[in-house]
Amino acid sequence: MLTQIRAEKPIIHCLTNHVVSNFQANGLLSLGASPIMGEAPEEAADLAALAGAVSLNIGTLNETTVTSMLIAGKAANKKGVPVILDPVGAGATPYRLSTVKRILEEVEVSVLRCNAGELAAIMGADWQSKGVDAGAGEADITQLARSSAKKLSVIVAVTGKTDVVTDGDTVIENASGDPIMTSVTGMGCLLSAVVAAFSAVSPDRPLAAAAEALRFYGLAGEKAAQHVKGPGSFQTAFLDALSSVRQSDIDELNRMEDGAL
Amino acid sequence: MLTQIRAEKPIIHCLTNHVVSNFQANGLLSLGASPIMGEAPEEAADLAALAGAVSLNIGTLNETTVTSMLIAGKAANKKGVPVILDPVGAGATPYRLSTVKRILEEVEVSVLRCNAGELAAIMGADWQSKGVDAGAGEADITQLARSSAKKLSVIVAVTGKTDVVTDGDTVIENASGDPIMTSVTGMGCLLSAVVAAFSAVSPDRPLAAAAEALRFYGLAGEKAAQHVKGPGSFQTAFLDALSSVRQSDIDELNRMEDGAL
Amino acid sequence: MLTQIRAEKPIIHCLTNHVVSNFQANGLLSLGASPIMGEAPEEAADLAALAGAVSLNIGTLNETTVTSMLIAGKAANKKGVPVILDPVGAGATPYRLSTVKRILEEVEVSVLRCNAGELAAIMGADWQSKGVDAGAGEADITQLARSSAKKLSVIVAVTGKTDVVTDGDTVIENASGDPIMTSVTGMGCLLSAVVAAFSAVSPDRPLAAAAEALRFYGLAGEKAAQHVKGPGSFQTAFLDALSSVRQSDIDELNRMEDGAL
Repeated sequence: MLTQIRAEKPIIHCLTNHVVSNFQANGLLSLGASPIMGEAPEEAADLAALAGAVSLNIGTLNETTVTSMLIAGKAANKKGVPVILDPVGAGATPYRLSTVKRILEEVEVSVLRCNAGELAAIMGADWQSKGVDAGAGEADITQLARSSAKKLSVIVAVTGKTDVVTDGDTVIENASGDPIMTSVTGMGCLLSAVVAAFSAVSPDRPLAAAAEALRFYGLAGEKAAQHVKGPGSFQTAFLDALSSVRQSDIDELNRMEDGAL
Repeated sequence: MLTQIRAEKPIIHCLTNHVVSNFQANGLLSLGASPIMGEAPEEAADLAALAGAVSLNIGTLNETTVTSMLIAGKAANKKGVPVILDPVGAGATPYRLSTVKRILEEVEVSVLRCNAGELAAIMGADWQSKGVDAGAGEADITQLARSSAKKLSVIVAVTGKTDVVTDGDTVIENASGDPIMTSVTGMGCLLSAVVAAFSAVSPDRPLAAAAEALRFYGLAGEKAAQHVKGPGSFQTAFLDALSSVRQSDIDELNRMEDGAL
Repeated sequence: MLTQIRAEKPIIHCLTNHVVSNFQANGLLSLGASPIMGEAPEEAADLAALAGAVSLNIGTLNETTVTSMLIAGKAANKKGVPVILDPVGAGATPYRLSTVKRILEEVEVSVLRCNAGELAAIMGADWQSKGVDAGAGEADITQLARSSAKKLSVIVAVTGKTDVVTDGDTVIENASGDPIMTSVTGMGCLLSAVVAAFSAVSPDRPLAAAAEALRFYGLAGEKAAQHVKGPGSFQTAFLDALSSVRQSDIDELNRMEDGAL
């Protein structure tokens, strides 16, 4: 799929938070996709209709951007364009949680990309979360992901030390990545946009697209983590790595894992 | 003009999109100018009146920022402060196109800095554009730029593989630059702010200011492109290069070209 | 305090401008704190209640974010959570100045972190400021800081070539840092958030927290300034340094200075 992204350069419409918007756009460009950012209600449907996938992110949500996310999501649904949702900090405030639930009700979401704490908050599961971090809880993440995927009729991609991607039945795990990835803001947000890019070139295979995106992303993290001196130089090296990891690197990892993608 | 910017540190008031605001402010600081960012209608006129030039950018426009751009533009006009307009993705949505046209009608714009696809959209010319990219069309860019400059009474600076700057009569070309410049988000947006900085120290010579800004910018891109490993390290090296390219580097390029600036 | 931040990872709720939000979040993460960004009025009180400290920054203020800052500030006050205010460009426009005064009236601010020009504007002192830069004026900065701290009942931390931190009586000076720190946008904004992180682990010692934050920050700047090639590579190196400066580095500097923290 990576080869296809670099050949087709799909447009990814991002309605995202202002903390990560630069990093997200640069990450998509490095990968080979074409980001278009914009969140005015006046143009949300037009931008979504141009796109190969739509990436929704509630990181610094407000009344206007929530309106635009709903408009863009519905416009994407009408055209069969995949919608990826990142419920940043869903458990942190009632406003975030109710917004996420509203989006999930009104928009047909293809992939829900989140961490365990966010998923637990959305499902009302018991979980100790702190701010926008993943937190640590007792729930069995794989079980939670499977039941969520079935109940919400979405692909769930929960990232953490080991990522879990599932449509409710099939479960794909991914352990690629490096711990330093948690020390840069927006790494999860950018990942969701990368899942959108993979979904854009494989709209009929959302499970495989999400899993392949996660493997690719972890490989880029591992590559960037070599020789860096801290979070600043990692961020730079990671943007470089997004442009230099090859399809064959992913293929090799797939062979080592289940090869099922 | 570069020497003058570094000596006078002109204030550049940027009303810009949140994707590139950090990169734009850092780029202006590296160059030697003093960015001031702010887009509340309550202070738009006050900030514009403080500035040596005003840089308008519609990348993530909304109702409020459009109001502020009109206020700032008119306040700048009253004081004879140059206004540079970057019509990001003008052809992508009707909202963007109508906003650009409204700004061009209500504000006296000094330099319109854009790519070929955006210019074609504004002029209603036939052009195949995709999202915010330049696209590829049949129109003769130089001819389009000249006729646009005359019709709109602005300096037109269309950037691409070869940049074209014109007041409708005189045409200056620039080929400095490096292909990797297209793999970082906001490179065009920052360029528009750099044109604003050059315009601030040469308000009576907008054509020369725009052309010299483009040559400077391309030289910085060439310098940064040496030894980089990808888009991430290029971005870092480019900010460094904006502070290290010298007036004599531009002078040498001018001598090699037409020397007419 | 640095050791404590890295152990406890306090949540810092930032209501900040979109120019620096990414840099501020990444700086806090590098330091070891947990940033949470968000400025909708609907969740401002909830986020502030989660936090160990609240960082208010008016860099790209608008009607909505000012409302949220007041809500978050008051919610923090109710829970005894320290509030740090960064009055970016307070003297640049009447809108900024009146907003800063309103926040100082309605919210109990723990630390006012600013430059000399901003402090002079707030206090109505004679000072020549230009845009958001510090400017140069005739007032005696230490005297101005002391009288401001008494009048406003806050800790005042004025940064410049030599930083001055005071509660109105005790004055602590800090000369750590490097001139290149002024060539990156948001260095002051991030510093204010770092003061918030130190305050979060020492809520009862705001003077010492502010002073220790400034010394730490200057040390990180000195460390990063070694071997860099310009503002771009400095920014990267600075984020690295925020994660690598140790408590013992600060202790050593404290011993060389007054040792009074």
